[in-house]
Amino acid sequence: MDRINIHIRDLITSYQELNPSTIPELSDPPSALEFMRYAATNRPFILRNGAADFPAVQKWNAAYLREVMNDAPVNVAISAAGDADSVLERPDGELWFIKPCEVSAPFGAVLDAIQLQEQDAGHTGPVLYAQTQNDNLRNEYAPLYADIPPTIPFARIALQRPPDAINFWLGSARSRTALHRDPYENIYVQVLGTKTFTLLPPTEAPCVNEQRLRAGTYVPAAETQAEHEAEGPPAAVYPTLDSPPASIPFPTWDPDNPAVRPSPYSHLAWPIRLMLRPGDMLYLPALWYHAVAQGNGNEGISCSVNYWYDMDYSGAFYSLSGFARGVGLASMGREEDGGFIDAPAT
Amino acid sequence: MDRINIHIRDLITSYQELNPSTIPELSDPPSALEFMRYAATNRPFILRNGAADFPAVQKWNAAYLREVMNDAPVNVAISAAGDADSVLERPDGELWFIKPCEVSAPFGAVLDAIQLQEQDAGHTGPVLYAQTQNDNLRNEYAPLYADIPPTIPFARIALQRPPDAINFWLGSARSRTALHRDPYENIYVQVLGTKTFTLLPPTEAPCVNEQRLRAGTYVPAAETQAEHEAEGPPAAVYPTLDSPPASIPFPTWDPDNPAVRPSPYSHLAWPIRLMLRPGDMLYLPALWYHAVAQGNGNEGISCSVNYWYDMDYSGAFYSLSGFARGVGLASMGREEDGGFIDAPAT
Repeated sequence: MDRINIHIRDLITSYQELNPSTIPELSDPPSALEFMRYAATNRPFILRNGAADFPAVQKWNAAYLREVMNDAPVNVAISAAGDADSVLERPDGELWFIKPCEVSAPFGAVLDAIQLQEQDAGHTGPVLYAQTQNDNLRNEYAPLYADIPPTIPFARIALQRPPDAINFWLGSARSRTALHRDPYENIYVQVLGTKTFTLLPPTEAPCVNEQRLRAGTYVPAAETQAEHEAEGPPAAVYPTLDSPPASIPFPTWDPDNPAVRPSPYSHLAWPIRLMLRPGDMLYLPALWYHAVAQGNGNEGISCSVNYWYDMDYSGAFYSLSGFARGVGLASMGREEDGGFIDAPAT
Repeated sequence: MDRINIHIRDLITSYQELNPSTIPELSDPPSALEFMRYAATNRPFILRNGAADFPAVQKWNAAYLREVMNDAPVNVAISAAGDADSVLERPDGELWFIKPCEVSAPFGAVLDAIQLQEQDAGHTGPVLYAQTQNDNLRNEYAPLYADIPPTIPFARIALQRPPDAINFWLGSARSRTALHRDPYENIYVQVLGTKTFTLLPPTEAPCVNEQRLRAGTYVPAAETQAEHEAEGPPAAVYPTLDSPPASIPFPTWDPDNPAVRPSPYSHLAWPIRLMLRPGDMLYLPALWYHAVAQGNGNEGISCSVNYWYDMDYSGAFYSLSGFARGVGLASMGREEDGGFIDAPAT
């Protein structure tokens, strides 16, 4: 197995030697051909103020969102500490993959609750994050859809497809999205507040210490599902194991907390960090690992929109990325199949 | 090691499931963006008659080449049986990597010799192939350079670079180029006769049974180097080991002779075969394995031109391809480093 370890190390370091350790910042939108060069090499870029002319960036604020959405019901994810879709270490040391309690509530009440959790420095209740990634901006948030372009021209022309999903995100600094990856070309637009991304390229799959975890879900405390759906967000949630039992392979190493649960390769990772401010656009290529923290704007909220375009499974990149993941796991004695395991959160 | 073998098998078969088993034939030249999509996915295409308007395709024949080149000295590769830069199995079973005897001779004499070796069905002497891959069309074959475009527009615009080398090839059905690969994006143009390519994608590196071989060279029989350079092509060549000793890792499995020297993965390969006729153009992406046989035109020669554009080492493709090669070798107990080893012939 020693030889395999050396090849894994060489994969990680050769990529680092052949690629910049920073993300380019473009001042003008790329042409479709220029964008294709980034997609071809699976390399991110930031387009500072690239969405400055979106009506969303010009018009959205708490009052506007409240006025347009009014009391339309929306799905909101509720976690104990802003840790939906992430690794939860239990008192006995076992790691669970924990999913949020999802409830439907009037948009106005969700926005109020998110703002309140920020205004109260001593807030200890559950944390709300409107983060369904199911094309929600063309569905439950449809009243806001007119404020963004229906596609990103350079991506549509280069990739020859419409977005598979356009998502609306409303949260606060209390929520953080755990390190994971998606099989999508992602165009991410910041509207209110900030987002700070920590990125790892697909070649660093052996660094993330993926482990198969038992799946759990936050459920309302001392309430039935029927009661809390009727009454809006529950006052408290606690983690329970899913029934029937389920498990999911998920990264257990976090480059922003690197001493905890490293794999034998984690020390080789070169995390890349970047911050998006209102109007900024990020191209996050398919299969890049990303953890996302939020910063509140002056209204106590962080709001984003993203466009997911299906990745191209043809060519060698997808197969080779799955191979790197699988060989990395095998070198650590883990019996996962190769290929890519879909993770539930962006 | 069993788990590694499974991941290697999955790499090879997942690529085959996600990609066509045939090469598309385009009827019109791609735009730069369309070409970039092929380069991005590292997938070949044929442009039938794509070079039909090249003066070379319209004008070249044996008489024209002889007239333009006259007695200009050119380098020619001489092998015992058309097997330059290939695997030679010695009487004791040892495999050598055998390089040609290279001599400088007047072009007219080289052309005569190539045509003669074809006209004589019982020809048993050495086989000539003008195949230096050192940008020869802008150097020793410069008188012919005016007959081709200096670059291929869709490739130049997409790749943002001029060709690193433009090569002229003059051989016959007696020569065959052994399976190997190059770190170049290759635009291949057939001018006279035919070329038949057998291709394997980079994910099939574990199939080619790469082994480190002692390097040898064909040398003239009963002549000194000085003598045969002065007198033109030698009447016979024989293989000798290089001094000082050298070795090179090289594929020892040939998909056109699959029962000989297979690796544990060779049976998984899906070789792709295609034939180019005069005026056809092939995009052969970087790092694809290719073996090339030739068919004589009505003058007993096969003549081609190719454009090599440096491949893009950034992104994950190069590093991941080297990883697949290295892990494949390690799984067979071979101690090569990962990465890509340059092979000497196209």
